[in-house]
Amino acid sequence: MQNRHILFILVFLLSGTLFAQEWTPLCNGKNLKGWKKLNGSAEFKVKDGVITGVYKMNTPNTFLVTENNYGDFILEFDFKIDEGLNSGVQFRSQSRKDYHKGKVYGYQFEIDGQCSGSVYDEERRGWLYPPNANPAAIKTLKSGVWHKARIEAVGNSIRTWINDLACTNLWDDMTPEGFIALQVHSIGNNKDLNGKTVSWKDIRICTTNVAQYQTNSTAPEINTVVNSISPAEAADGWKLLWDGKTTEGWRGAKINAFPQKGWTIENGILKVHKSGGGESTNGGDIVTVRKYRNFILKVDFKITPGANSGIKYFVNPDLNKGEGSAIGCEFQILDDKKHPDAKLGVKGNRTLGSLYDLIPTINSGNFNINEFNNATVVVMDNHVEHLLNGIKVVEYERNNQMWNALVAYSKYKDWPDFGNAAEGHILLQDHGDEVWFKNIKIKEL
Amino acid sequence: MQNRHILFILVFLLSGTLFAQEWTPLCNGKNLKGWKKLNGSAEFKVKDGVITGVYKMNTPNTFLVTENNYGDFILEFDFKIDEGLNSGVQFRSQSRKDYHKGKVYGYQFEIDGQCSGSVYDEERRGWLYPPNANPAAIKTLKSGVWHKARIEAVGNSIRTWINDLACTNLWDDMTPEGFIALQVHSIGNNKDLNGKTVSWKDIRICTTNVAQYQTNSTAPEINTVVNSISPAEAADGWKLLWDGKTTEGWRGAKINAFPQKGWTIENGILKVHKSGGGESTNGGDIVTVRKYRNFILKVDFKITPGANSGIKYFVNPDLNKGEGSAIGCEFQILDDKKHPDAKLGVKGNRTLGSLYDLIPTINSGNFNINEFNNATVVVMDNHVEHLLNGIKVVEYERNNQMWNALVAYSKYKDWPDFGNAAEGHILLQDHGDEVWFKNIKIKEL
Repeated sequence: MQNRHILFILVFLLSGTLFAQEWTPLCNGKNLKGWKKLNGSAEFKVKDGVITGVYKMNTPNTFLVTENNYGDFILEFDFKIDEGLNSGVQFRSQSRKDYHKGKVYGYQFEIDGQCSGSVYDEERRGWLYPPNANPAAIKTLKSGVWHKARIEAVGNSIRTWINDLACTNLWDDMTPEGFIALQVHSIGNNKDLNGKTVSWKDIRICTTNVAQYQTNSTAPEINTVVNSISPAEAADGWKLLWDGKTTEGWRGAKINAFPQKGWTIENGILKVHKSGGGESTNGGDIVTVRKYRNFILKVDFKITPGANSGIKYFVNPDLNKGEGSAIGCEFQILDDKKHPDAKLGVKGNRTLGSLYDLIPTINSGNFNINEFNNATVVVMDNHVEHLLNGIKVVEYERNNQMWNALVAYSKYKDWPDFGNAAEGHILLQDHGDEVWFKNIKIKEL
Repeated sequence: MQNRHILFILVFLLSGTLFAQEWTPLCNGKNLKGWKKLNGSAEFKVKDGVITGVYKMNTPNTFLVTENNYGDFILEFDFKIDEGLNSGVQFRSQSRKDYHKGKVYGYQFEIDGQCSGSVYDEERRGWLYPPNANPAAIKTLKSGVWHKARIEAVGNSIRTWINDLACTNLWDDMTPEGFIALQVHSIGNNKDLNGKTVSWKDIRICTTNVAQYQTNSTAPEINTVVNSISPAEAADGWKLLWDGKTTEGWRGAKINAFPQKGWTIENGILKVHKSGGGESTNGGDIVTVRKYRNFILKVDFKITPGANSGIKYFVNPDLNKGEGSAIGCEFQILDDKKHPDAKLGVKGNRTLGSLYDLIPTINSGNFNINEFNNATVVVMDNHVEHLLNGIKVVEYERNNQMWNALVAYSKYKDWPDFGNAAEGHILLQDHGDEVWFKNIKIKEL
């Protein structure tokens, strides 16, 4: 054998050693060595390589928790669950005496009949990747049948699959590491579920070179990292319209600098101050330095009770030289229940999500005053849409006879060619009420 | 030769005699026998088969007129004209002492630089087939060059060609017969045109079996016969919505019969009476018995000074049980100059041709209060257009969010789902002012 041939064989053997994915089983198949039970008192059994959790009345959620912590990993396992049960697999999770009395909290790979493979933030933020984010993955689970599961947690990227169907594609940065845990959910006093079981087998983890084994996901990505653009968003053309820290890219609508008062930036939040409810009487509106033509604009906003604000587009800051807000089409932001403007205008055309004073919404958009809500504006030439929390609430075509006739009836009747500009600035309104903004992103089309 | 062969030859010879088109020359090429001169004193010469008319200052139009009259015929001739002149060939024309002091009047095949081959009603109705009716035929003439002309006058059908290009396609019934005449137009005191010439040659006429020699025309047809559907219109799906004589197909908007008062039918005109300017206070509106969905509706209307009326569509006569007009979208008919409603509403949305109280016109549509004007409404599902005298003045899409928002601002805000019905009755409005209607036609789409 020539030396060259020996070299080839050596490289081949080495590559087999170096590059084959290394899997470590999390269960020895005989007992629960390496695991511990937390919170509830439901029973976990192990037999012939299968861990089985037995549902039990009148005990809280019970978790079988790994003694080790894991950060970046690929986890695979098989699972099977009886009908009507709820279960899950925690990862990067924790239990601390000083947090919710030691209840297990963190990422959970959901297992139930509706939305298996979705990711829920147990005892913390709730749904991170809600079932409706990926309709293709809803109702993937069949009770009493073994399913293959895969979880990839690599840096901020969290992705799941069931039977090779992509379920979750999440970009989140809250907890980089923690234990893995199998859940037996509480069943209260439901006798019908008492004694039913969920089972796992072939639980194995890869923690080395995980980035190279990451899989592309067909599930739409959700980015929960505040004021960030994920790699997938960046590749899709999204950019931050506000960096989350500075005033860069923004200025006062009627001045060349950012307002000295009335706005603050704090903990990733852009905040309009309360100043008595007047229109642009305190710091005044702020606008993007640049103009935008065709785009998808996304803004998360949270209002205080009774607040009024708005997001305007096609804004020409030079039009209105007098008092009040700069002129443009407005995605209305309002506490419809407490602010009197909701009752003014015509047939609801000044309510939240409406094209202000022109077109009322057709849907309430699942608005929740206690949380951040998402406003999206889509502009493609003359076609414009407003979405509230992903639900289309307004749709119209501008630059036509009917648009002009509608404007002629509105507050904007005296602004020449209102709403027909090919491009304009984007504006956040100071209406003298405290409103919070974050995650301001734009994709130009 | 067999008998059978002889028979074939006989049939062949006979067919040549029976079916060959018979042409009769109108000029012997040597003198003007069979012609006479009328009206002006310009000179006509004949030499080598060419008749030449010489333009002359300070004389009215001069006509070289055939002594014979012709009814149905096909006329062909060649003509050539110097630059800057206006000429023509009269047909089915007349000269009577008791009409305009004997001036020649009737159909004229126009010869000029702009609109040769168009048909003008000399000394009577003016343009019957105006140049803009057939843009393809505008500026067909080159000065100083021989052109071939063809006129087909068969029953109501009058068609012309120049050099095989279809120029006029007219359906008219005013005068069935008359002379043919060559025109030398007056030139006033224009010295530059004095002595210039127009020439004709090879003038020939066919008066037997003319129907079988009629040619299809690519020019769009104009039907000037009042309250009629031409064969071409019928083939294209047009129907009379009013027969010009009876109340058939119409009823009062709020009663099951035609109104006993307030409307009369006289000489092919459907007339609303003057009754003090009130809305449906006299005879009341009338509606079609049938409903219509997708259609082109054409109505000729003539208003009296200060008058108000309208043509409504998508009308539901059962909606408004109270006083006033029935509810539907309205092609507004108004004397904008004298009726106060023109100044009311918003930015002109109650003026003539507007979609009443909703969308103002973008064009005055060449309205002439002294004449009949044409209102056209085109409905194709949710797309609607108003045309005034053939010019688009309003265009909109109904059954969408912007439409509903516009309606919400208007007089119609309280009628549920206004303007969104798939079909409805067509209405002529009694607004207490005298207005005339005729040529009410519909083509369902």
